[in-house]
Amino acid sequence: MTQTNRQILLVSRPQGAASTDNFRLVETPLAPLAEGEVRVRNHFLSLDPYMRGRMNDSKSYAAPQALDTVMIGGTVGEVVESRNAKFKAGDKVVGMAGWQEYGTSNGADLRVVDTTHVPLSAYLGPVGMPGVTGWYGLNGIIKPQAGQTVVVSAASGAVGSVVGQLAKRAGCRAVGIAGGAEKCRYVTETLGFDACVDYKAGNLYQDLKTATPEGVDGYFENVGGAVLDATLARMNPFGRIAVCGMIAGYDGEPVPLKFPQLILTQRLLVQGFIVTEHLDVWPQALTELGTLVGKQQLVYRESVADGLENAPEAFLGMLKGQNFGKQLVKLI
Amino acid sequence: MTQTNRQILLVSRPQGAASTDNFRLVETPLAPLAEGEVRVRNHFLSLDPYMRGRMNDSKSYAAPQALDTVMIGGTVGEVVESRNAKFKAGDKVVGMAGWQEYGTSNGADLRVVDTTHVPLSAYLGPVGMPGVTGWYGLNGIIKPQAGQTVVVSAASGAVGSVVGQLAKRAGCRAVGIAGGAEKCRYVTETLGFDACVDYKAGNLYQDLKTATPEGVDGYFENVGGAVLDATLARMNPFGRIAVCGMIAGYDGEPVPLKFPQLILTQRLLVQGFIVTEHLDVWPQALTELGTLVGKQQLVYRESVADGLENAPEAFLGMLKGQNFGKQLVKLI
Repeated sequence: MTQTNRQILLVSRPQGAASTDNFRLVETPLAPLAEGEVRVRNHFLSLDPYMRGRMNDSKSYAAPQALDTVMIGGTVGEVVESRNAKFKAGDKVVGMAGWQEYGTSNGADLRVVDTTHVPLSAYLGPVGMPGVTGWYGLNGIIKPQAGQTVVVSAASGAVGSVVGQLAKRAGCRAVGIAGGAEKCRYVTETLGFDACVDYKAGNLYQDLKTATPEGVDGYFENVGGAVLDATLARMNPFGRIAVCGMIAGYDGEPVPLKFPQLILTQRLLVQGFIVTEHLDVWPQALTELGTLVGKQQLVYRESVADGLENAPEAFLGMLKGQNFGKQLVKLI
Repeated sequence: MTQTNRQILLVSRPQGAASTDNFRLVETPLAPLAEGEVRVRNHFLSLDPYMRGRMNDSKSYAAPQALDTVMIGGTVGEVVESRNAKFKAGDKVVGMAGWQEYGTSNGADLRVVDTTHVPLSAYLGPVGMPGVTGWYGLNGIIKPQAGQTVVVSAASGAVGSVVGQLAKRAGCRAVGIAGGAEKCRYVTETLGFDACVDYKAGNLYQDLKTATPEGVDGYFENVGGAVLDATLARMNPFGRIAVCGMIAGYDGEPVPLKFPQLILTQRLLVQGFIVTEHLDVWPQALTELGTLVGKQQLVYRESVADGLENAPEAFLGMLKGQNFGKQLVKLI
């Protein structure tokens, strides 16, 4: 009997906000493996803000996702069949199979991981791309010094939670920005940040000022828009801003930066980065992050949607900040 | 007979655009020198955009200029009397005496210069703060590589002209942005840039696109506003922007940056700087720049107003781009 794969394709580009109409669930038969190929049953799919950028047909750091192809995405799963000597059935692997239940590849995109101390799904979060993203922006760009203040937006998310916890370990005052009292409570009480500002409470700048009495030396930017404007106005001389995401502008309507002259008057360094262009730091970052997670010294939280068919809805919710922690889709 | 000094004071802060009403010319008697003091007859006063920032009473990289005090400013002149062993009458010096005909100080702010091969006024231009500013932004931040494209705004000015000529010497394509056909012709024909875009011609982005067929790798920002927006949109991945001035926002009305997300999508480095905070590079920069000017391998141009009383008018004209080359005031 031929096995069936379920996949989600990108079938149209958003005009303004993305919608479920941009996606389509299809069922396709699985072809027998060719020599050298590996088949993985995906357990979890990662949903990440960068995917929204790929849906547009515009100049960006990556080619747009082609229409009528499986949506790109990081996955973890288990090898179910292998005609490649490097993999055997039962191996737990991290890959980029995208929004589908089974991934088939020549194995070049797969990495076998050890789930003895680190849960498989964590390889899509704190010990995966989001974790390394936080690690690189903090250590490679912000370069925090003990006693300084580091602010991170989307603080309860997969990247932000890592940034703040690592900043605390570096001896900094860690201040988060998140949406809603519940997320803020989690950021301070569970993640151990010194303070968290609720950007939905209506007093963003004043609340941020109160939370950063000595100004801001490092800012890890995940959202852009009004949050960036407010934090920029709190930057100390020689502050560093690592620009990792600008989710506020993803729906096509560019959000201007109100006070660019602060870059000059405060002599700021503002640097955009894409973590996959800094592969040299991945081994060190993954080792450090894996050790911390294994020892339960790095806390993380997951928001898990159940079933591939719910991936589009979960993705759109994440873009609106409805997730709470790393957004995953459980596929099995 | 007591000698008289003429001075220009800042007497009020601009509401919006600066005006001549913000200044007042006064005559004050010169007190006899105390032990350790030096008196300099200033020959030239330098007018620079940063002075506009000092007129405001707002948070910036420098304390605001106090009201009813002599306007700050770089000067070159000749020692006319000295009770300090380090200086003798006839010494040519660079200092920061401000908008006045005579400067009196303990000598800590003065540096004796050699005018054998380099004209005295050049120490306020290509072999002074503007020159080092261009040198640092280019070599310290943009770090140009042969074959890359470097763009500089206010290209015919004291800083911009140095940036483009040094970029050419580094093997780059140098593209200027300047206001008006005459300045643009000067930038290409006299300064030797590869191209110059006239921002007043009404097709800024298209003209810049034509002038930078392979995009922009380094941008030296002197003006901000629409020019920054246009150049940002031409930046290549991993481009560097040295932010030296944002004259467009000096009159109090902040000019937003339209597409900040390009910092992320193009992984740009944007860095603000103040050259006086990088004193370590001054000796190397001044040696290189002095050598080039002495050998007439670095071209520069001066716009000279005559007489201290004309300094405010010349300063306001410079803020509107009416100067052509380094704006000086001849005081003797």
